[in-house]
Amino acid sequence: MKFAGTHLLVDLWEATNLDDPALIDRTLCEAAVAAGATILHSHFHHFTPNGGVSGVVVLAESHISIHTWPERNFAAVDIFMCGACDPHIAIPVMQKTFRAGRVDLDEQRRGRVF
Amino acid sequence: MKFAGTHLLVDLWEATNLDDPALIDRTLCEAAVAAGATILHSHFHHFTPNGGVSGVVVLAESHISIHTWPERNFAAVDIFMCGACDPHIAIPVMQKTFRAGRVDLDEQRRGRVF
Repeated sequence: MKFAGTHLLVDLWEATNLDDPALIDRTLCEAAVAAGATILHSHFHHFTPNGGVSGVVVLAESHISIHTWPERNFAAVDIFMCGACDPHIAIPVMQKTFRAGRVDLDEQRRGRVF
Repeated sequence: MKFAGTHLLVDLWEATNLDDPALIDRTLCEAAVAAGATILHSHFHHFTPNGGVSGVVVLAESHISIHTWPERNFAAVDIFMCGACDPHIAIPVMQKTFRAGRVDLDEQRRGRVF
């Protein structure tokens, strides 16, 4: 079977550095490049009053998104990559910043071609 | 149990209108508003030579993304919404544009709080 891409849904618990959009932007871009992806665009939004961050890096090979809840030390990340990229490589790069105590990972294959 | 949000992974097969970034931008924004979401930012990229489109709408309540493969009549959509939004409402709005012959839907609850 062939697939259009691999989509990882990554829940980060007991995590840190969830309220700094510039740091999160740099972290996700570094993670994308480490995974072999090409960055086309990134956009991050900082919410008030809780400091949460929502953002996305659009890639030539799909995207990485993040939504953080600093008050819960929780972030929901998804990493969707097609082509020769390995999205799993992005996770340890993110962990250098977010240092999650628990990482829940769900992997979906998108666009299965029989 | 409580959750931070609902994340729908929607694979559209036998779909149309997958190579027009302006139409896709309008469609995803309309779908977001129908679902009760507030749009913060949208960005769409048009690939050459196959005409595929990648893009995202960043919402106050998370995001909608799309990646299209016009040559396969396939698009991979994800709709992540927290709060009072109903992401399921976004799907029929998208179907008015994409008219997929088959829709594969996977629903994930993100950030489960016991």
